[in-house]
Amino acid sequence: MFVSSENNTAIAPELDILLRGVEEVLVEDELIKKLNSGRKLNVKAGFDPTAPDLHLGHTVLLNKLRIFQDLGHEVCFLIGDFTGLIGDPTGKSVTRKPLTVEQVVENAKTYEAQVFKVLDPQKTRVVFNSEWMNRLTPADFIRLASHATVSRMLERDDFSKRFQAQQPIAIHEFLYPLMQGYDSVALEADIELGGTDQKFNLLMGRALQRDYNQTPQVVMTMPLLAGTDGVRKMSKSLENYIGINDLPGEMYSKLLSIPDQIMWRYFDLLSFKPKSELDAWHRRVSEGENPQTAKAALAREIIARFHGEAAAESAHQSAGNQARLGDIPENVPSVEISANGQENLPIAAVMRLAGLVKNSNAARDLIARGVVYVDGKPIEMGFEVAVGHERVIQAGKKKIARVTVTL
Amino acid sequence: MFVSSENNTAIAPELDILLRGVEEVLVEDELIKKLNSGRKLNVKAGFDPTAPDLHLGHTVLLNKLRIFQDLGHEVCFLIGDFTGLIGDPTGKSVTRKPLTVEQVVENAKTYEAQVFKVLDPQKTRVVFNSEWMNRLTPADFIRLASHATVSRMLERDDFSKRFQAQQPIAIHEFLYPLMQGYDSVALEADIELGGTDQKFNLLMGRALQRDYNQTPQVVMTMPLLAGTDGVRKMSKSLENYIGINDLPGEMYSKLLSIPDQIMWRYFDLLSFKPKSELDAWHRRVSEGENPQTAKAALAREIIARFHGEAAAESAHQSAGNQARLGDIPENVPSVEISANGQENLPIAAVMRLAGLVKNSNAARDLIARGVVYVDGKPIEMGFEVAVGHERVIQAGKKKIARVTVTL
Repeated sequence: MFVSSENNTAIAPELDILLRGVEEVLVEDELIKKLNSGRKLNVKAGFDPTAPDLHLGHTVLLNKLRIFQDLGHEVCFLIGDFTGLIGDPTGKSVTRKPLTVEQVVENAKTYEAQVFKVLDPQKTRVVFNSEWMNRLTPADFIRLASHATVSRMLERDDFSKRFQAQQPIAIHEFLYPLMQGYDSVALEADIELGGTDQKFNLLMGRALQRDYNQTPQVVMTMPLLAGTDGVRKMSKSLENYIGINDLPGEMYSKLLSIPDQIMWRYFDLLSFKPKSELDAWHRRVSEGENPQTAKAALAREIIARFHGEAAAESAHQSAGNQARLGDIPENVPSVEISANGQENLPIAAVMRLAGLVKNSNAARDLIARGVVYVDGKPIEMGFEVAVGHERVIQAGKKKIARVTVTL
Repeated sequence: MFVSSENNTAIAPELDILLRGVEEVLVEDELIKKLNSGRKLNVKAGFDPTAPDLHLGHTVLLNKLRIFQDLGHEVCFLIGDFTGLIGDPTGKSVTRKPLTVEQVVENAKTYEAQVFKVLDPQKTRVVFNSEWMNRLTPADFIRLASHATVSRMLERDDFSKRFQAQQPIAIHEFLYPLMQGYDSVALEADIELGGTDQKFNLLMGRALQRDYNQTPQVVMTMPLLAGTDGVRKMSKSLENYIGINDLPGEMYSKLLSIPDQIMWRYFDLLSFKPKSELDAWHRRVSEGENPQTAKAALAREIIARFHGEAAAESAHQSAGNQARLGDIPENVPSVEISANGQENLPIAAVMRLAGLVKNSNAARDLIARGVVYVDGKPIEMGFEVAVGHERVIQAGKKKIARVTVTL
């Protein structure tokens, strides 16, 4: 955890919230100087151009950007579409096919719909790096590549490991950190935020700005948020995530289920409350208050952010771990799936197509355990859903959808 | 030395002369296949865009290209101006300042004037790689860079040594071999010739052509020609070179001065005579003939190439090491130098400006040793040349010029 040095009394109140939860600042004195300049600072953060589905882990960075906005600064929300439009030039990765311009625009809209639940759209400039990258001439490219050395690149953790293990590193992979750094030059960024895993690339921005005669950006790295298991980083694939589009009840129950030992980390990284309020919670819990009460307060703050105050107030009522199977809560999302010409669909297929389970095996497990309910009643293997009917399907306590099967 | 395999009887006569003196062919079977195709082959060789001043060492490659032309094939004389127009992007090398387009065109003319003493202009296509390199988009560049790995690059001798010694290698240096290889793709080269020190880059062309779905070029490497000292490679800076613009007499004396043990290498790399004639010289010398007789025959062939038959016949008369100081030979080159507004120029300055010595110190040395003659008479320090007069100046036995000083 970042510990601020002492020489910042002049702007202490804003530094406290700016540095809360931050992993590392390079370098703090420069940050203070920039903050004290009175200028509106240009705060950059880069994002992948792939279709996003944000969870609270992603919002750690967005929250910090929002703090900068609340202090009057501007956020440069950079969508790194240039490399996305190229895809994986080795052609080896099926998941990194080149995106079309239309896909990039579409993904950007999905991003905006989600991030503006945290960011202030009035103080956010959404930019695409293809704008300046595509203008580089081959000569510009070579000059850019001349600004770093092979051994410097091999200092990056992942490159170093692959090099040691004699796993191939293609030359173009060395160009990506340079291009990310060049984005900072093109944007004349004052500050860049990123995950701790981005530190190398963020520092490349600093170095390149210096080479291009700009004042180097301050680099701030944010730690990774642990998932609901309290151990591994929050990630969709690990199923320990809280999606920002999760229903209020689901968010509530997930947030109350996190282990006590990571609770304060969640406060630091997800709450916008002033330090005094966080200190008060620390004190109350240390004096014997049930930690669940503190978690519930945090949950209300977060649910209000994504679903509004009213939903935050009633979320505990529809919380998955308080609902019983067969009780149908409010606000069940509707899903339409296609039977692809069949008249009936097996329940396992319906659950999979409606996104209630990852695959048919998971569906069959739940059915075998007797925790799949249709319209409030448990069903068994062999149950089918006919085309044209709407069914409320519960897959265990936490997953529910109002499903209509169409032809 | 390259030893041809046995399966080439069909095109044996042309293979003999094509492979004479060659260091390495990759791969010979492919070469034979291409030769047997009956197609006019596209034979590529790349040259620096810097101002050239060719010596016999450079002609080793040109001679081989000429052989291909005599067999009906076309030579792609590639001037690598693209990188020359960029210069040294790190800005560290004063000798690699970016060239202007005008300089490149000027240098190309100087090249052509010299190389067409060896190459057949009718079968030579002079091309500049800036033509296709400047058309590459940033995305093309990244795709190109994806075709090689870091460890592959570090296999190149010089990179490997610098990496081991922890000397910096800038990323753009890894791009150059790729670009040279891409030239072969752009030209669809059938064969590329280069020095042994170019082997890595030539093979990069093979690999890239394969990646771009072309039949890979055959790579032929030529050895370096030893200088007149018989030990180190021929090089202007080592002063062991025979310039192709050297006067007939100078060429003659230099060629007769080479050590016997490198004489056959010179025959292999510089003579176009048929194998039978070379074999005859081998036999005569082994039977007691003075090796100088063989060298004189080689000198006549080479002088005829650059100065014509008549000059070749009389070269031995004006040979530097047979001329005495004060004897003025035929064919003294004329030089005009400017006094920059002065009425008289000190002899040391005249010698330097006329290119007879490298610097004024060298001039003073020669004057002190009493081997500088003006109009056939020795002069001393303090001698000046007045504006408007033409003077024949000898700087030692081998350097002579007819110098006119203008205002």
